[in-house]
Amino acid sequence: MTALAEREAQTPLALICGGGSLPLAVADSVAARGRKVLLFPLRGAADPRDYATRPHHWLYLGQYGKFARIARAAGCRELVLIGSLVRPSLTQIRPDIHVLLALPGILRAFRGGDDHLLSSIGKLVEQRGFTLRGAHEVAPDILAPVGALTRAQPGASEREDIALGFDYLRAAGRFDIGQAVVVSGRHVLAVEAVEGTDQMLARVAELRRNGRLRAPAGSGVLVKAPKPGQDRRFDLPTIGPQTVAAAVDAGLAGIAVVSGATVIAEPERLVQQADQAGIFVIGVPAAGE
Amino acid sequence: MTALAEREAQTPLALICGGGSLPLAVADSVAARGRKVLLFPLRGAADPRDYATRPHHWLYLGQYGKFARIARAAGCRELVLIGSLVRPSLTQIRPDIHVLLALPGILRAFRGGDDHLLSSIGKLVEQRGFTLRGAHEVAPDILAPVGALTRAQPGASEREDIALGFDYLRAAGRFDIGQAVVVSGRHVLAVEAVEGTDQMLARVAELRRNGRLRAPAGSGVLVKAPKPGQDRRFDLPTIGPQTVAAAVDAGLAGIAVVSGATVIAEPERLVQQADQAGIFVIGVPAAGE
Repeated sequence: MTALAEREAQTPLALICGGGSLPLAVADSVAARGRKVLLFPLRGAADPRDYATRPHHWLYLGQYGKFARIARAAGCRELVLIGSLVRPSLTQIRPDIHVLLALPGILRAFRGGDDHLLSSIGKLVEQRGFTLRGAHEVAPDILAPVGALTRAQPGASEREDIALGFDYLRAAGRFDIGQAVVVSGRHVLAVEAVEGTDQMLARVAELRRNGRLRAPAGSGVLVKAPKPGQDRRFDLPTIGPQTVAAAVDAGLAGIAVVSGATVIAEPERLVQQADQAGIFVIGVPAAGE
Repeated sequence: MTALAEREAQTPLALICGGGSLPLAVADSVAARGRKVLLFPLRGAADPRDYATRPHHWLYLGQYGKFARIARAAGCRELVLIGSLVRPSLTQIRPDIHVLLALPGILRAFRGGDDHLLSSIGKLVEQRGFTLRGAHEVAPDILAPVGALTRAQPGASEREDIALGFDYLRAAGRFDIGQAVVVSGRHVLAVEAVEGTDQMLARVAELRRNGRLRAPAGSGVLVKAPKPGQDRRFDLPTIGPQTVAAAVDAGLAGIAVVSGATVIAEPERLVQQADQAGIFVIGVPAAGE
C-alpha cells in the first residue's frame, strides 16, 4: 500500500447504497475493521426501513453536490458504490450543476450496456477528487472463497458443466451482456441478458415444469462470472439466499461462482439454505489464476 | 448435378414431417416442381388435422423399418426431415430393431445439444442407403432472399444492431445453443437458448411492459442465424407469421435473418402481417458471402 492509499484508508468511508441487503453487509464488515462508514442510500433504490436505525443521508441519483459537501465535511476521501440499481427513469434523477455538466456523457452511457453507465458514474466521481473503491477492497470477507461453501460438492458431470459455463461466459463477455448461464449435461439451457439471474432461473424452472427439460431435478449448474474486463469496483456478480432459492426451484444441482470475484450476500443464511436443499455452492478460481 | 443425383431427384421424395406448417409448405413446393412426395408425419409432433386430406403414413419416432419398407416400395431414394421436433420422451419412441442397434449412439446424442440429436438421426438414415436432403435443396423458394421482404427497411441504427447480433451469434455458435438474439441500441437484450425464439420474444415483451426496457416501442431487432457448422439439411432457422406477431408484441423494429439459409414459412401472410404492423423483415447475406 502506498503512503497515500494508507492515509486514505484511515478516513471514513462513504458508501453510496443501492437496493438489497449487500450495502449493509459491506457497512458492517468495514465497521468491524474499525473504520467509520457514512451511508448514502439512493432514493428509489434503497429501502428506507433498512436505514431507519443507522445514521444516513438520502441522495437522489445525480445529487453529486450534496454528496460531495457532506462527504468532504466528514473527511471522506474514498467512496464505494454498491447495491442493485435498476436503470433509473429520467424523472428519478435530480441532476445538480455538476451532473448537468456531465449529462451528455451519462446519456451516452445509458444507450450502452450497464458497464458504460457504471463506469461513467465512476469517472465523474474520480474527476471530482474522490477515490472509487470496490466493495471487495474494503470488505474482502464478503467474497466467495475457493472451494465448496456447502456440504454438497459437484460431481464429475457437474464439473464439466461448470467448465463449459465459464468457457461460454468468457466468449460472450465482450458483448457486455449478462454474467450467468445454466448448463446441464454439457448443454447450455439458458443465457442471462437484461432479465437478470433470478428471472433466468425462473425460466429454467418453467421449462422443467412444462416438460421441455426432461433431465431429473437435481441436475444442472448455475454458472456466474464477472464480465471480462469489467471494472470490479462497481459491478461484481452477487449471489444470495434468493439465488439459492431460485436455483432450488429450477431443480439445479448447484451454483458455481468465481472465487475472489463474487459477492456472497448473507453467507450464513445462504449456506444453511443450500445445505437444507442439498445443493452445492462453490467458488472456482478464474482460469489462469 | 451428378448423374446419380439427377436420377435420385426424379424419384419420389420422402418427407418425414415434424410439427408446424412448414412440412406442408415444402411438400407443396416440391409438388409444384412436378415431383411426387410421400408424407410421413411423426406421431406426437405433426397435427393429424393437417394431414387429413393428404395421403400419408404415420410414424412413431424410431419406426425406421416401417419407413424404409414403404419408402423403398414407392421407389424413394431421397428423404427430407422437416418441422419442429420437441425432444421426445422415451415413451414416445417405438424403436424397431434397426433403431435398437443404433440406440447407444442416439442416447449419447440426447445428452448433447440438438445438433447432435439431429445429426445422429441423419447418419442413421444414410447408413441405410437413403440420401438425406435439406428442405432448402428440394424447395429453394422457401428460403429468405437478399434484402427487405417488407415495405419498412432498417435504418442506420438498426443496421448496427443487426451487425452486432450476427457478430454475437457467430461467437456463441460453437456452444451449440440457440440461434437468435434481440439487440437494441447496440445492447443485447435477450439471448435464446432452450426456450426458443417465441419465448425469448415474450420475455422482451414482458421486460418492456414492466418498465425494465425504457426504449420506445418500435426499437430493437430480432436477429436469427444458423449455428456455425450446423448441418443445414435438417436444422435451418425458420420464421413465420407467429414470429412476426411475437416481434410486434415485443415492440421491435424488425427481424433480420440470413438470406439463403433461413426458411420463411407462409411468406405471403408473414409479409402482410409485418407491413400492417410497419416492421421490417430482411434477409442479409452471411458474412464473407
